[in-house]
Amino acid sequence: MTTSRLEAFSDGVFAIAITLLILDIKVPEVHHDLAHALWHQWPNYAAFLISFMVIGIMWVNHHAMLVPVARVDRPLLFLNLGLLLTVVVIPFPTSLFARYVRAGADSHVAAAVYGAVMLTAAIFFNTIWWWISRGPQLVHDHVDHVAARAQLRRFSIGIYVYAATILIAFISAPVALAMHFVIAVYYVVDRLATDSDGAPAAAP
Amino acid sequence: MTTSRLEAFSDGVFAIAITLLILDIKVPEVHHDLAHALWHQWPNYAAFLISFMVIGIMWVNHHAMLVPVARVDRPLLFLNLGLLLTVVVIPFPTSLFARYVRAGADSHVAAAVYGAVMLTAAIFFNTIWWWISRGPQLVHDHVDHVAARAQLRRFSIGIYVYAATILIAFISAPVALAMHFVIAVYYVVDRLATDSDGAPAAAP
Amino acid sequence: MTTSRLEAFSDGVFAIAITLLILDIKVPEVHHDLAHALWHQWPNYAAFLISFMVIGIMWVNHHAMLVPVARVDRPLLFLNLGLLLTVVVIPFPTSLFARYVRAGADSHVAAAVYGAVMLTAAIFFNTIWWWISRGPQLVHDHVDHVAARAQLRRFSIGIYVYAATILIAFISAPVALAMHFVIAVYYVVDRLATDSDGAPAAAP
Amino acid sequence: MTTSRLEAFSDGVFAIAITLLILDIKVPEVHHDLAHALWHQWPNYAAFLISFMVIGIMWVNHHAMLVPVARVDRPLLFLNLGLLLTVVVIPFPTSLFARYVRAGADSHVAAAVYGAVMLTAAIFFNTIWWWISRGPQLVHDHVDHVAARAQLRRFSIGIYVYAATILIAFISAPVALAMHFVIAVYYVVDRLATDSDGAPAAAP
Repeated sequence: MTTSRLEAFSDGVFAIAITLLILDIKVPEVHHDLAHALWHQWPNYAAFLISFMVIGIMWVNHHAMLVPVARVDRPLLFLNLGLLLTVVVIPFPTSLFARYVRAGADSHVAAAVYGAVMLTAAIFFNTIWWWISRGPQLVHDHVDHVAARAQLRRFSIGIYVYAATILIAFISAPVALAMHFVIAVYYVVDRLATDSDGAPAAAP
Repeated sequence: MTTSRLEAFSDGVFAIAITLLILDIKVPEVHHDLAHALWHQWPNYAAFLISFMVIGIMWVNHHAMLVPVARVDRPLLFLNLGLLLTVVVIPFPTSLFARYVRAGADSHVAAAVYGAVMLTAAIFFNTIWWWISRGPQLVHDHVDHVAARAQLRRFSIGIYVYAATILIAFISAPVALAMHFVIAVYYVVDRLATDSDGAPAAAP
Repeated sequence: MTTSRLEAFSDGVFAIAITLLILDIKVPEVHHDLAHALWHQWPNYAAFLISFMVIGIMWVNHHAMLVPVARVDRPLLFLNLGLLLTVVVIPFPTSLFARYVRAGADSHVAAAVYGAVMLTAAIFFNTIWWWISRGPQLVHDHVDHVAARAQLRRFSIGIYVYAATILIAFISAPVALAMHFVIAVYYVVDRLATDSDGAPAAAP
Repeated sequence: MTTSRLEAFSDGVFAIAITLLILDIKVPEVHHDLAHALWHQWPNYAAFLISFMVIGIMWVNHHAMLVPVARVDRPLLFLNLGLLLTVVVIPFPTSLFARYVRAGADSHVAAAVYGAVMLTAAIFFNTIWWWISRGPQLVHDHVDHVAARAQLRRFSIGIYVYAATILIAFISAPVALAMHFVIAVYYVVDRLATDSDGAPAAAP
């Protein structure tokens, strides 16, 4: 299998998951002061925006990660399905976070679940890159798989960062939400700066 | 990155967002006179039709805008994600507009939100075209980027028109809705007339 | 514009609309005798099946219709968007039909709306084929556009058949539903028999 | 028709169906102890996971099955639509299973419906492979259709296995659910072991 059908299917899943996020922003039912009711929904907009950025960055990284790949084997296929499972799940913790971020004790649970899903995505990204860069089997001839493997260390930072958001979640859910926003912005800026298409700068 | 995977992902998002619009047209629950109940839902049909036309025109323009593009860099990638964010959002203000267009004071808020989303889309279209046409870096060799840049002025009219719909929204929501319909029809006719594939006639 | 991006976008819309049909089949809420509750939902299964067949056949025909096309102009682009509008709408009358087919007087309205949407699709298919076959502008050099145009007559039968289902709707909604099923089966069998990829046998 | 547009449309349907599965995982409405409420939803997570794996494996197999195919005829087109019908349906029995797996007598009905949908998918996979391998008409010149046909026997095991899950469903729904999980894991491991792209190892 070449990467083209893998990319087409993955693009479809990314595109649908990112679009389904909007289904969680509901039209409020009020009889007066719609503006206030809309404002009151700010956690939904915040969660929507962050998850949109996260899936968007994942899509950009997913593409970058497949650039050096010449051949797709079965383990890569199923690792990719594992990553897509996490992507498909994202609308659920997004909705959960938006609903419970102002809910006292339950806010910690919601924020931790959100962080756990992001952590899972980061682990899958690392595992996929580890599998791709393990030797010359899957990559194009001109790709230096030793150099690619060396990127794993920088790559794995995402795992620690997302693990940290789970800890933060038990201190303050809004702070964890803000942290996810900062991480997403960091990845966008980082990607704009490096502009290297050969490998993902970091996960996700 | 070439334009092909960017287009594939964007097409997916456009196709899903345009199809999700139908989810806002609900089957009415009545015990007699279904015809009247269906008729009573006219704002939903109107909002669906206008948003369908808007997303459809955006898709046509998006394609036209990428025709001269030979290379995709990171800023273009993220500007495009910003535009897709607006496209994904559209089902929400559509639903909001349909629900509140007959709701007195709240109708103004709903209409203004709808206009604001369209304005955001127009701004993203302008920014993307400004980025593409800023020099010879991204376009094919045969493309005259100075001429392309000159189109920005005509292009930017959309920004003023959509800004105007926000002002109109505070006078009359149904008039703003009609205005969005007229703008959409104008763009369809304009595109049919020029039939130039080299650059979008106007945004969105 | 070549047909490839038009096809990709259309395929996306067809795929999403056909998949969204399942959202109308709800899990019944009962405390005993689930089997009976599931059986009681037969109109939903019937409407789902018929609409799935209709969209499936439309997708097959849409492909066949674009085989002779070499160039896509703006009118074709917007006619195609009109057809996609009808495709996107289909889940709504499907749901309406399923909900009201057993509802006495209202069943006629629901059946007529379903037939009207199918009639609209047939009209768009005819108009698109009329536009494609109007001369040598859009078709490949080896295509005989006069012969293609001659197929319009056979092609237009769909318009009369679907108009008839609207009349039948006012006599008996279940009969109209059965008629839509028979038409769909006819088109599948007809397509299997001719197996001609050069042009759609009939619309839709 | 070549396989490319068939694959594109099928990929779209697979991608959407697999993503829609998440819509059945709802945010619980509680005032305290969110963690417990989330835990209480385990049948939804289990059903989601199993159906995700099933659709994922079907997608991998669907690709493998089309590798030897050079030409698509109408019967293959409609057999494929029949398979896609089953794929589109999957979110419904998934939701049904999750809702009723703890519901006493009704759990048997829900589990049997789930098994029946999987059985239907297996039958379509077998029929499609039987049609592809019936002679040299559809396959590439270098493909040995006699050898391909010989794989049908191994291929058909899936039919018996899924038929067995329906019988098990009437003894214990949780056991049937576990059995579906084991089957999915078996197929993943089996695929990883053989890594043969020429033909699907088994259905689905």
